[in-house]
Amino acid sequence: MDLEKKFEEVKGYIGQIEYLTHAIVLVDWDMRTNMPVKAGESRSKVLEYLSSQLFDMTTSTKVKTFIEELSPYKDNMSLVQRRTLEELEKNYNETMKIPADRYIASVGATSRAQIAWEKAKEENDYESFKPHLQKVIDFSREFIGYWGYEGDKYNTLLDKYERGLTVEKLDKVFGELRDGIVEILENIKKSEKIIDTNILKGNFDTSKQKDLSLCILQKMGFDLEAGRLDVSVHPFTTNMGNKDVRLTTNYHKDEFTSALFSTIHEGGHGIYEQNISDDLENTGLNSGASMAIHESQSRFYENIVGRSKDFTTYLLNLSRKYFEDFNKVSSEEFYEAMNKVEPSFIRTEADELTYSLHIIIRYELEKDLINGRISLDQLPSEWNKKYKEYLGVEPTSNTVGVLQDVHWSASLFGYFPSYALGNLYGAQIYNTLLKEKPEIMKEIGEGNLRNLHSWLKENVHKFGSLYTPAEIIERVTGEELNSKYFINYLKDKYYNIYNINK
Amino acid sequence: MDLEKKFEEVKGYIGQIEYLTHAIVLVDWDMRTNMPVKAGESRSKVLEYLSSQLFDMTTSTKVKTFIEELSPYKDNMSLVQRRTLEELEKNYNETMKIPADRYIASVGATSRAQIAWEKAKEENDYESFKPHLQKVIDFSREFIGYWGYEGDKYNTLLDKYERGLTVEKLDKVFGELRDGIVEILENIKKSEKIIDTNILKGNFDTSKQKDLSLCILQKMGFDLEAGRLDVSVHPFTTNMGNKDVRLTTNYHKDEFTSALFSTIHEGGHGIYEQNISDDLENTGLNSGASMAIHESQSRFYENIVGRSKDFTTYLLNLSRKYFEDFNKVSSEEFYEAMNKVEPSFIRTEADELTYSLHIIIRYELEKDLINGRISLDQLPSEWNKKYKEYLGVEPTSNTVGVLQDVHWSASLFGYFPSYALGNLYGAQIYNTLLKEKPEIMKEIGEGNLRNLHSWLKENVHKFGSLYTPAEIIERVTGEELNSKYFINYLKDKYYNIYNINK
Repeated sequence: MDLEKKFEEVKGYIGQIEYLTHAIVLVDWDMRTNMPVKAGESRSKVLEYLSSQLFDMTTSTKVKTFIEELSPYKDNMSLVQRRTLEELEKNYNETMKIPADRYIASVGATSRAQIAWEKAKEENDYESFKPHLQKVIDFSREFIGYWGYEGDKYNTLLDKYERGLTVEKLDKVFGELRDGIVEILENIKKSEKIIDTNILKGNFDTSKQKDLSLCILQKMGFDLEAGRLDVSVHPFTTNMGNKDVRLTTNYHKDEFTSALFSTIHEGGHGIYEQNISDDLENTGLNSGASMAIHESQSRFYENIVGRSKDFTTYLLNLSRKYFEDFNKVSSEEFYEAMNKVEPSFIRTEADELTYSLHIIIRYELEKDLINGRISLDQLPSEWNKKYKEYLGVEPTSNTVGVLQDVHWSASLFGYFPSYALGNLYGAQIYNTLLKEKPEIMKEIGEGNLRNLHSWLKENVHKFGSLYTPAEIIERVTGEELNSKYFINYLKDKYYNIYNINK
Repeated sequence: MDLEKKFEEVKGYIGQIEYLTHAIVLVDWDMRTNMPVKAGESRSKVLEYLSSQLFDMTTSTKVKTFIEELSPYKDNMSLVQRRTLEELEKNYNETMKIPADRYIASVGATSRAQIAWEKAKEENDYESFKPHLQKVIDFSREFIGYWGYEGDKYNTLLDKYERGLTVEKLDKVFGELRDGIVEILENIKKSEKIIDTNILKGNFDTSKQKDLSLCILQKMGFDLEAGRLDVSVHPFTTNMGNKDVRLTTNYHKDEFTSALFSTIHEGGHGIYEQNISDDLENTGLNSGASMAIHESQSRFYENIVGRSKDFTTYLLNLSRKYFEDFNKVSSEEFYEAMNKVEPSFIRTEADELTYSLHIIIRYELEKDLINGRISLDQLPSEWNKKYKEYLGVEPTSNTVGVLQDVHWSASLFGYFPSYALGNLYGAQIYNTLLKEKPEIMKEIGEGNLRNLHSWLKENVHKFGSLYTPAEIIERVTGEELNSKYFINYLKDKYYNIYNINK
């Protein structure tokens, strides 16, 4: 067999899948940013139709034949070829297990649920969202039935976002993480340090916020000729290849950091996608390695870089050009205000330390929902109970409680752990980066993020999904996933801010 | 045969064609409003892929079978059923004549030409656009070969936009129109009336222009919950059904009328699409009857309403809330400035009187291009020569000359005449409207456009393409297409403004 020639044919076919996927991505992006409200029902039908086409292409006899013809030659293939075949086969096998009509129905239910969620969140109306959420959960449970599971049902969902991850492993890692955070948090509670965050509140013209966000994105190396920044209820990143990467954020007039750190976070996702090598086009490998690796990049930019002493010092100087009240603020005050630890309701606005507790709450609730241990009637009170227990705060409404996140309406069960894993991966990568580039934080303090950008591109981004998450972490850091670097990083940073002796 | 049941099946299939078309429309809209510049090549491939799917659906054996099964029962069908079948058959027959690979290649060439045109226009670089335009023209000529033609090759293109229209008929109508306009223009040249348009120039904050545009759209009855207003190089309207209708305009800081009248024009298109009856969903009849009928609505709102004494008086009062300099302007000055006759380069900014001469120039050039009588090397000089001859002005660059319109890059040969036909249809419809609703202009002068909106909805819009253009004009006005009402309207209006005795 002429492997080169055969793979040209395969890439032609995968190219078609990519173009169709681009259309679906755009239709979905538009639904969440631009679509007039009355178009919701017709839009859901468009998504159903396109998804049915994608289903057919993913499970066609053509794909089956490719797999059968190529499988005997795995040993003769280049790495890209072998991984291309593996991805094709994985998608084929996973999709084949789901009946086409159920798949399409799930797409319609999900897009309707997202529209309903937006309205429910705005109107603090959990009851109107509940039947939609029920449908989405029922589909998830039904699909687990088709895919099968080992041990916990939730394992099948975890595996979708982080291959090989299980409840057993995650319970252990999250247990260590929770203990580490709780220990730091208790020490902080005893500290007498007072941090004033009022300097970040006030009146911040949203068009100036937008200009600042765009300026920071460019500093980060996000290419605005191959991407955009828009507005949506819940910030997100989506892309059509590496030359059309779209971020969203959400400006609040009375608040300085919310839109800014959303932009930096989504910018981290965006840079990752833009940096994936052109060589991976039409292979099915031209997207991030996993959602946790993705979150390791976004949360790295948001927190390890974005909330560092060096970067916030640079940011303060820059922000003074947009908001002159910052002339009255010192870099120490600015840094501390951005890192004040204060348990709160909203995940996306949580401080870096308590953030992972929000994730652990969602992880535990998802496990219970998927295993049928709690009902949707119980969900809001279970949510509030866990917030009380883990964070010591009780949400004052469902809008700032169980309705705050887009993920469940989008059927992203199994995704949330990626954020916390991203924190762990990010700290591991940071540890290596500091060894290889000891001067990096000084550069960042000067607003020069170019070396950071190229180091991440060369070590992580450009490979797309050519390597598995485990392989990437092993290649970059020489170690497997663990929580020690992140906990140490948190201790160093927060004991310093709160004047606590280690 | 159970016709009802069969048509349910047909509508299910046409629904799928509609959803796919919605995706194509959105991908194209996004390309012209939002797409990052580097994504052009990949976007063209997406359009090629989706268009190939649409080609397959339009020419499938399923469609052939529907046609064969249903054709014997035409006499038993309702009007909607018969017209649904006719449209399905027409699309099938037209598309079948084109080889699939040539169709798809033409879609790619067209989307690349549009991207190249935008850049060429901006950089006044006709040479860079020429090869793209050549490809688009070659495809048009090639397709005429597949479709066949009677008499003039250009007839085939005219027929696409206005069924049954021929060069022979159009030469006659346009001849009368040109003579009428030239006569009026010569009289105006002799007039001593001086009109000052400087009041419409100055510094007009674009965000205020946008607010005013949105306000006018709402007055017109355009539903912003079922539509949007965005920005693009060349204003256009597109839609995905009647609940997602998208207009664009283009704000110029130093100029008051350009964006405003673009908005009103596109608003006329938009209202038409929004008003099409829900009953026509999934029939293939749920879009405007023809481009000329469409332009009759947009140009009606833009000129007959938008530039009328009554409306401009209302508009002046409204505009004073946004731009206080208008407090110094009288309603007479405002009205006259908006209707000053002054031959110029740019079609979209032309006065109502000379506008049709711009169209006649394009019509004549298109006929020559399609018949191979002039080459693309000659095109810019031919363009300029005709502007000199018909309008007495010579474009100072290709940007304000041959590169000004998006249409040719979008392969819309045969479309331009629709604008002038729209003027004629519009004046015919206006004549009837005034008889039926003698008080209508007074209402409009009070900013009340509701009765206008509902009269157009009931008489024209709601039928979509259920009737042919000729049927609609006959139903509404009792006459067929003619130029007399438009010429009389122009004489009345402009002789009055320029104090000329009839």
